[in-house]
Amino acid sequence: MSEKGIAYELQTEKPWEGRDGFFAMNPAGRVPVLHDEERGITLADSRAICEYLEETVENNQLISGTAQQRAEVRRLVAMFDENFFNDVSGPLLHERMKKRLILRQAPDAKMLREAMKLSHDWLDYIDYLIDNRPWLAGATMTLADLAAAAQISVADYLGGIDWSTHEPARGWYLVIKSRPSFRPLLSERMEVIQPPSHYAEVDA
Amino acid sequence: MSEKGIAYELQTEKPWEGRDGFFAMNPAGRVPVLHDEERGITLADSRAICEYLEETVENNQLISGTAQQRAEVRRLVAMFDENFFNDVSGPLLHERMKKRLILRQAPDAKMLREAMKLSHDWLDYIDYLIDNRPWLAGATMTLADLAAAAQISVADYLGGIDWSTHEPARGWYLVIKSRPSFRPLLSERMEVIQPPSHYAEVDA
Repeated sequence: MSEKGIAYELQTEKPWEGRDGFFAMNPAGRVPVLHDEERGITLADSRAICEYLEETVENNQLISGTAQQRAEVRRLVAMFDENFFNDVSGPLLHERMKKRLILRQAPDAKMLREAMKLSHDWLDYIDYLIDNRPWLAGATMTLADLAAAAQISVADYLGGIDWSTHEPARGWYLVIKSRPSFRPLLSERMEVIQPPSHYAEVDA
Repeated sequence: MSEKGIAYELQTEKPWEGRDGFFAMNPAGRVPVLHDEERGITLADSRAICEYLEETVENNQLISGTAQQRAEVRRLVAMFDENFFNDVSGPLLHERMKKRLILRQAPDAKMLREAMKLSHDWLDYIDYLIDNRPWLAGATMTLADLAAAAQISVADYLGGIDWSTHEPARGWYLVIKSRPSFRPLLSERMEVIQPPSHYAEVDA
């Protein structure tokens, strides 16, 4: 939303607490939900919200180009939202956040090792894309870069990213981290859990 | 694609066999993939493909209406593709298809009961929508109806849907089943596994 120049206010929601008012806004019980008080509009689902903002706010097109290029942006968004989440950020959140704060259990070392291994494969794929294109989906920054960086940021916070052998991916991510839209997000902290020291650094 | 009047040919792909040529078309290793030989275009991800077809083929708009209505279509598509799949069709495919044909294990009765229970909650939600609207997303048939019917069809094939107490949902699904685009799909069969007798019936 900052990239589109739209003012917003964040509200914390813990979907696992099952608050009635939240399920009324999104029967799927998931974040994010966008609520526009003035227009009386409530929207749910990350991609539905992004498509809506792209259709209603012309400023800084993030699903841009020909129909084929737009399909490439959407392919990559889905890949990071679903496959990267299933492989890396989802298991890390479960093992290092949910087990610590909610279930009061120790993380499963085998699950963490598997997530770290898959994380390397994903960084290899980003290295490959960035060796061939300036941004993940092509010549310009798109929603694909933001979706990928959002997932990677969660994984990086939870110590799941080893950047040492992934220079192209690391360079791409440093550029995203230093954007005015992204930088403020890096100062947010989870309860109890602290990120590694490199997490919020924007120059290296 | 039939709804949009686009001719196509289906090719069977078993993603779990990890065929190199398939991963070259979609590094995420998932179906569906759309390949247009003539234009040399390969697209991956169900929603990216649907958005592409909607942008390039004007005939029969399936993500239609105002930006807000389009967001409602996309919210429901995501809900059935992701949440319904996670709750119902995914577990049924795992227990009744994957375990039988690939893992050679017996299904887990507890998992099946849980999927059936959640299936009732989902049919309640469809009953509620259809009590208030002619189609899932509003006044016209959209991609939301097709996405929901696709997931429900898989669950119904695998015996996961008890229609007896869900008249509104049942009526809506019978209308979808009788469409010329949908009807031929009902004669397809999985290897070994047979659907219940009501599965392909279009009048009741």
